[in-house]
Amino acid sequence: MAKAAPPPPASPWVAASGREQQREAKRNALLTTAAQMFNERGFHATSLDDIAARLNVTKPTLYYYVKNKDEILLECVKKGLHMTLDGIEASRAAGGNAIDQLRACMRVYADIVTQPFGMCLIRVGDEEVPEPSRTELRRMKSEIDQAFRRLVAQGVQEGTLAPCDPKMTAFVIAGALSWIGRWYQSGGEYSAAQVAEQCIGTLMHGVLGPGPGPGRTAGDD
Amino acid sequence: MAKAAPPPPASPWVAASGREQQREAKRNALLTTAAQMFNERGFHATSLDDIAARLNVTKPTLYYYVKNKDEILLECVKKGLHMTLDGIEASRAAGGNAIDQLRACMRVYADIVTQPFGMCLIRVGDEEVPEPSRTELRRMKSEIDQAFRRLVAQGVQEGTLAPCDPKMTAFVIAGALSWIGRWYQSGGEYSAAQVAEQCIGTLMHGVLGPGPGPGRTAGDD
Repeated sequence: MAKAAPPPPASPWVAASGREQQREAKRNALLTTAAQMFNERGFHATSLDDIAARLNVTKPTLYYYVKNKDEILLECVKKGLHMTLDGIEASRAAGGNAIDQLRACMRVYADIVTQPFGMCLIRVGDEEVPEPSRTELRRMKSEIDQAFRRLVAQGVQEGTLAPCDPKMTAFVIAGALSWIGRWYQSGGEYSAAQVAEQCIGTLMHGVLGPGPGPGRTAGDD
Repeated sequence: MAKAAPPPPASPWVAASGREQQREAKRNALLTTAAQMFNERGFHATSLDDIAARLNVTKPTLYYYVKNKDEILLECVKKGLHMTLDGIEASRAAGGNAIDQLRACMRVYADIVTQPFGMCLIRVGDEEVPEPSRTELRRMKSEIDQAFRRLVAQGVQEGTLAPCDPKMTAFVIAGALSWIGRWYQSGGEYSAAQVAEQCIGTLMHGVLGPGPGPGRTAGDD
């Protein structure tokens, strides 16, 4: 590890940036709590008063951090999308063949949809977000979709994946993994990572499973 | 075919039942239009005035058929659920081994989520429906889930499906097929039936596809 830098000289700006950091941490806590509540009871059924009550503050305090409920939702969904896009980028940067990268991206996506912001992405519909933000969110969702399509297409080209229309296969992957965000509750029979591994295994090998089995040679197209 | 029954004697009730049929047909048209609008723009963004306008009637006319917007949503979602449960029942009654029945049920489900009521089931969240109807809808959704789990468990027992936790596999199937209801638009590159066949093929055989291919022997768990 590099040697630690000497401490900066005393300055009034240090305190200001500390306050800014604290404000950011509080804003994040607000957004996380809001996302959890939207996921539990729905966006429309959650009021700013509800969010304030769970945070042990009053509604006017919330206005110091956010403009309104629409802004909260937009920020939550954006955070979920940025986490996903960053994770996909890291998986691809790690290299490997298309299957390795595809599996890594699937793990990233399955993990994020079990967390508050990612779950929000799945549970709250785009149509709740007013324009022009809605178009921006859809553009980001489309980027995620394109990343999966590219990896599938690359796998087909490498001969490591079965021939298919990458668009359709990417939809099957996104659908199965997004669904986790619909039903997953922490504290259940499996951890989020175990759920992800089982779903990814089924997506990779199919319901019929690897290799020919009894009764699977006829009529199983 | 059986010989046609003689016409019933003239009766004032015939006219009454004709009126009842006409009322039912109009109520159905109202529900279908409402479902389409909820799917296009979201439940909250659709007003009774919007629905009336598309039907070329005034809002007071709608109240002759339904109590309010909540009742419309409930009826739409219930219709989607009943169609699905009836279709699953018919697929199972048709017999065959677990794979045949599972594939038939997948076709039913994939087909229904591309239609207005089924799409509503996927696009509008349960939390929009007030209690006690919400609990009833969740019970019906759970029945669909249980039907898929039973078929998967049966397939595993028959040895025709890969060993798995049927609950997880049923979630993967439901997720991938439900996703069709999120993105499908008629008039696109593929018909609803073509989309269904491709998705079912991927679910059955997996992204890796049937049989071993180059580069699939190592690290493809």
